[in-house]
Amino acid sequence: MELIWMVPVTGLAAVLFALWLAYDVLRRDTGTDAMREIADMIFEGAMAFLARQYRTITIMAVITTVVVTVLVGSISEGVKPIVTLPDGGIGFGAETVVGRWEEGLLTGIAFIVGAACSGIAGYIGMFIAVRSNIRTAAAAQTSLKDAITVSLRGGAVSGFLVVALSLLGVSAIFFTYSKILGNPYEITPFLIVGFGFGASFVALFAQLGGGIYTKAADVGADLVGKVEAGIPEDDPRNAAVVADLVGDNVGDCAGRGADLFESMSAENIGAMILGVAIYTVTGDIEWIMFPLVLRSFGIIATIVGLTSVPFFTSSDPKSTQDPMQPLNFGYYIVSILSVIGLFICTKMMLGSEWYWFFFCGITGIATGIAFVYITQYYTAGSWRPVKEIAEASRTGPATNIIIGTAVGFETTALTAISIGLALVISFALGSQAEIDAAIPAFTTGIFGTAVATMGMLMSAAYILSMDTFGPITDNAGGINEMAGAPPEARDITDKLDAVGNTTKALTKGYAVASAGLAAFLLFSAFLDKVKERLEIPLTSELPIDLANVDVFVGGLMGVMLVFLFSSLAIRAVGNAAGAIIEEVRRQFRADPGIMAGTSRPDYHRAVDITARAALREMIAPGILAVGMPIAVGLIFRFTRNSEVVVDGVVYPDASGWLAVAGMLIIGTIGGIMMATVLNNGGGAWDNAKKYIESGEFKVDGVSVGKGSEPHKAAVVGDTVGDPFKDTAGPSLHVLIKLLATITLVLAPLFISS
Amino acid sequence: MELIWMVPVTGLAAVLFALWLAYDVLRRDTGTDAMREIADMIFEGAMAFLARQYRTITIMAVITTVVVTVLVGSISEGVKPIVTLPDGGIGFGAETVVGRWEEGLLTGIAFIVGAACSGIAGYIGMFIAVRSNIRTAAAAQTSLKDAITVSLRGGAVSGFLVVALSLLGVSAIFFTYSKILGNPYEITPFLIVGFGFGASFVALFAQLGGGIYTKAADVGADLVGKVEAGIPEDDPRNAAVVADLVGDNVGDCAGRGADLFESMSAENIGAMILGVAIYTVTGDIEWIMFPLVLRSFGIIATIVGLTSVPFFTSSDPKSTQDPMQPLNFGYYIVSILSVIGLFICTKMMLGSEWYWFFFCGITGIATGIAFVYITQYYTAGSWRPVKEIAEASRTGPATNIIIGTAVGFETTALTAISIGLALVISFALGSQAEIDAAIPAFTTGIFGTAVATMGMLMSAAYILSMDTFGPITDNAGGINEMAGAPPEARDITDKLDAVGNTTKALTKGYAVASAGLAAFLLFSAFLDKVKERLEIPLTSELPIDLANVDVFVGGLMGVMLVFLFSSLAIRAVGNAAGAIIEEVRRQFRADPGIMAGTSRPDYHRAVDITARAALREMIAPGILAVGMPIAVGLIFRFTRNSEVVVDGVVYPDASGWLAVAGMLIIGTIGGIMMATVLNNGGGAWDNAKKYIESGEFKVDGVSVGKGSEPHKAAVVGDTVGDPFKDTAGPSLHVLIKLLATITLVLAPLFISS
Repeated sequence: MELIWMVPVTGLAAVLFALWLAYDVLRRDTGTDAMREIADMIFEGAMAFLARQYRTITIMAVITTVVVTVLVGSISEGVKPIVTLPDGGIGFGAETVVGRWEEGLLTGIAFIVGAACSGIAGYIGMFIAVRSNIRTAAAAQTSLKDAITVSLRGGAVSGFLVVALSLLGVSAIFFTYSKILGNPYEITPFLIVGFGFGASFVALFAQLGGGIYTKAADVGADLVGKVEAGIPEDDPRNAAVVADLVGDNVGDCAGRGADLFESMSAENIGAMILGVAIYTVTGDIEWIMFPLVLRSFGIIATIVGLTSVPFFTSSDPKSTQDPMQPLNFGYYIVSILSVIGLFICTKMMLGSEWYWFFFCGITGIATGIAFVYITQYYTAGSWRPVKEIAEASRTGPATNIIIGTAVGFETTALTAISIGLALVISFALGSQAEIDAAIPAFTTGIFGTAVATMGMLMSAAYILSMDTFGPITDNAGGINEMAGAPPEARDITDKLDAVGNTTKALTKGYAVASAGLAAFLLFSAFLDKVKERLEIPLTSELPIDLANVDVFVGGLMGVMLVFLFSSLAIRAVGNAAGAIIEEVRRQFRADPGIMAGTSRPDYHRAVDITARAALREMIAPGILAVGMPIAVGLIFRFTRNSEVVVDGVVYPDASGWLAVAGMLIIGTIGGIMMATVLNNGGGAWDNAKKYIESGEFKVDGVSVGKGSEPHKAAVVGDTVGDPFKDTAGPSLHVLIKLLATITLVLAPLFISS
Repeated sequence: MELIWMVPVTGLAAVLFALWLAYDVLRRDTGTDAMREIADMIFEGAMAFLARQYRTITIMAVITTVVVTVLVGSISEGVKPIVTLPDGGIGFGAETVVGRWEEGLLTGIAFIVGAACSGIAGYIGMFIAVRSNIRTAAAAQTSLKDAITVSLRGGAVSGFLVVALSLLGVSAIFFTYSKILGNPYEITPFLIVGFGFGASFVALFAQLGGGIYTKAADVGADLVGKVEAGIPEDDPRNAAVVADLVGDNVGDCAGRGADLFESMSAENIGAMILGVAIYTVTGDIEWIMFPLVLRSFGIIATIVGLTSVPFFTSSDPKSTQDPMQPLNFGYYIVSILSVIGLFICTKMMLGSEWYWFFFCGITGIATGIAFVYITQYYTAGSWRPVKEIAEASRTGPATNIIIGTAVGFETTALTAISIGLALVISFALGSQAEIDAAIPAFTTGIFGTAVATMGMLMSAAYILSMDTFGPITDNAGGINEMAGAPPEARDITDKLDAVGNTTKALTKGYAVASAGLAAFLLFSAFLDKVKERLEIPLTSELPIDLANVDVFVGGLMGVMLVFLFSSLAIRAVGNAAGAIIEEVRRQFRADPGIMAGTSRPDYHRAVDITARAALREMIAPGILAVGMPIAVGLIFRFTRNSEVVVDGVVYPDASGWLAVAGMLIIGTIGGIMMATVLNNGGGAWDNAKKYIESGEFKVDGVSVGKGSEPHKAAVVGDTVGDPFKDTAGPSLHVLIKLLATITLVLAPLFISS
């Protein structure tokens, strides 16, 4: 327990660091009045949307809290103590140590705390992000270095708050439930699963609502402005242009923050559950606390890495440095420090055979780095895939879409191989660790995959900072454009914007990879919950047999859910975009002065209508995501009657949880692959358009750019990719983890008693 | 065994019926000289492609035969006898009854016979189809009734030959291996699995090559003709226009025929393997022969149904009858007769509790009907999905693609629910049948799903006839257009062409559904092969545990294979289309007389270049499909060491077959869903374009048609959908079954000895 003090200390340090970053950003220059006017509109629009969105989410979360509390209380049989069995295995005692209603209440509280932490992190992060855009725009009039520093620090407020609040939230609730309420350490992880569900719940609606908003505004503004009215992008005469800038923030910043908050929380709790069996045998609480401590080392690594970025940035105002370069240097520093932290942490905490787990963690860190490069390869302009899409644009939009789809599908290969390798290697390494004869290799193997996931997520705050950097620089560019800033400043923000596109894409790759690694450990945690209920020893294997018809059909439903959910999310963008288009058309008709440039369009109204449409459209996919696993579990529980045999004991009426298990794990595989296709396909289309715009693309040796036929075809691809990469894809990350947390919390619902 | 005589009798009857149909079609009028000239070019082009394609396939099949023979001989341990175990279960004896090299040889022979039967059925069917198109074109100048009769009978030659050769092939090889070579009945199904692999092997390349050809010619002809040169579709000045008409035949006719040949063969053999355990207990050979006999009843039902179609067709030359109507009536007759046949067959063959299996079969027949209607709903012009895509075309190609994608994704819902329901219901019904105390409910349940699959496939010959009807009528339209036939004839062929699009789409739905149902029984057959090798009783459950990292990663690789394979197939179309476009451009440049209409383009050369490009492009996805399951199995076999416990016995080093099992079943789920998306999405895009062309689509109350902006947008969607629905989607059906048959034949390769 020597290192446990680090958790609150680094958690608070991360909060203080975020506050200092916020202070540092806010004290900077805000440019001209014209800039301030635009920035204020973005700020107000974003805050208004967030307020409205969080009001909706709060109402739903409160209702869900009550439902979860009552439901868990009714279906639970109370929590049983974890004991060493006569045969040496780890199992459950007969008496309950926590009553059913107490379990319901504790789960409900954990749910609302998780939801609240996620909400607070998202809200404050957004608050600073929409204050950083104008300061980045102003700094861009001075130097690239200043602009990078402001935008990255603005983004880092969100990044560090997300990581800190996840760490502090999980630790605080663990401490409260164990030390203060006096529950044994080994059962506490089972009591805090609600925290992960709460985080997933908020993330689902934050990502869906934000994702629909951002792309509805983007597609709507483009269609009604560029296509119908023939005015350029970010033109102030377009009433939807502020909504578009607001959208960048609510989608990429708030949405992705909630996504990774959920990843870290769910993965933390899942890993703690996996540590329970080892703790029960060894009596070393380190096996449960390890995920929290390792995350603390990750915070230190990211603080150092982030602070170092300005030192790698050229202060020469005429520098032609690629802004990706200092960001990459910072990431190297984070990675190196993570390895050192991992070494210290595994050596001090994970027993005499710690080195196996050290290498598991290295595997995870390497996977994170691999994904950063795979994503860049598939979505950045300098490589084959994007060039190929640009080339296909020569024969029109149809071939652009066909080749873009082929590229999107192709990206699953390296993704699946990387995740597969990481899982197999970390499992194989982990299962080599001989901790105690009573602990099977299977248990340490799964723990190995958990360490890999944790290793990968050590750099989460840095990746998230780079992600939020994206919308800040995008907004800065928009502000400079609308306020008529000098062209040099516009050049700098353009450069940063292009880098922002890359960092946003790689954050999604990182989120997918972490979801893929975490899936396996969360599935094991779900099985541990089932074992608890059925009083099967934790050290026994509970087979989820693919040849069982319930598992197979559950899996079929899981993959179908992925497609249907994506369909609803994509369609939602179309519907919400329709609402904005109508409004902008109405404004053009009602006041001809707008088009003439003599009167200002009503930006507020457009922002407001987009917000309402986005929130309305998030309901259907949200309900599907929450409702379908519950429905499938209940239908199979009450209509089918498969048996499962564990250690010679027959467990009848297993169909409910078998179908849910199949749905969870096969749906996760489908979801990871599909999210990869949507994210990378969309990113590649976007950058194929940008590649043509850059002038590097040549037809018969002549450079063609904006306005050419290939460019028009590439714009179609970009528009198609928008809802793929910024709405459906990221929402799928959340769906995957929601599936895991909802089934973890409601496991008893699917088990016949 | 009373009914077994029906198998050769109905098989020969089907062949004779096909010969009579061919005679009936060939004796009909072939129209004018101009028509004959065009039809001859299509005929020559199609036959030249087929000759070239089958030459390639033959070479590969012969090599594969040798490889399979040697490989199975080397890795086999010989076939063990099936015996009743002391504890009452069904297992394997110690001595081998078939030596390893004999097993290799028998498997190799079965492989080449399966490949040959598939090839012969495809070749003859195509031969008649490309003779029927001109006769349909001529008949269309007389009446709708004549045109339907000729095109449906022409298509039926292919349909009946496919079914007959599958039935006769499997029966003949079963009879030869058991009666003539003297192998026990119960081990013969294991010896003929090579037949299914041979069928899959041919189907893979037939479908890939044909699918790439047809869409490369289509997309290429459109891009270079309509887009670049500005001349209409099917214009004789376009050198690619004959290649386009050839393509319709080689894709839809030869490709789909091979696809369903494979479905029926693999499903027959899989079901026979499942019957082995029941036969061993009861001694009733009916349990093994049932699939063959039921198919015989299906042949009778389809002959009657098909013959009845002309009676439902109006002979009034001015009739406005929808041609879909008589086809639907014929299908009802097939369905009703199938139910009667199913009743007789189950009652006479499947013991005292036959009625459970009767209802399993009914479930399958109902599923077939459900898919016919689901596909129509999603791809025909009169319903919401297609209208919605047409509506989205108002705002350009981007929204057309976005909504089309959303519709494609949405179609997975009813597909997955229908397949899931069919599996759960037929399994539940089957497991109620108490045949003998020694036969577990699990075994009869799986047998129930097999009966459902067989019930569904009873109507295969009819569905296939409707499918081949599609390219025949499409060609007839093209011939009439190019030969300048009177407009009334063109009206009739247009009408039939639209119906052909629907029948082609529903055949794909049917193929997906049968693949989904068959997946589960083929997976069980694979597990039986593993049990044979590991000497695990057939009546024991062999759990494929989803929580095992090898199964999980195998599954991840399976879904990835689906995406990567689709990517290669889609890209292949783009590459091959590029070759045609170059050629047509070259011809336009080389002879300005072509564009002026004074000289004829060199159609032959265009056909030839398309053929060579298509065959070259089918290699990469083909190798991926065959190679990846083998690679994954071998890698896991030699690098990982999971254990499996069955009935308390530990089986070490199970990773190879565990990973393959995960890949097979999870890849199948992913493949079914993906094929659904590609087929139905593509079909909906196609018909959205046709819906706009029909003039029914209105903008602000005014009907807009060809040449309007929404129509241009819809053309983009249609072009995107082409490689989806006619290359990648149908190739995925084949991939799924190839996965099943290749793992079935090579199972020992993945098992450590």
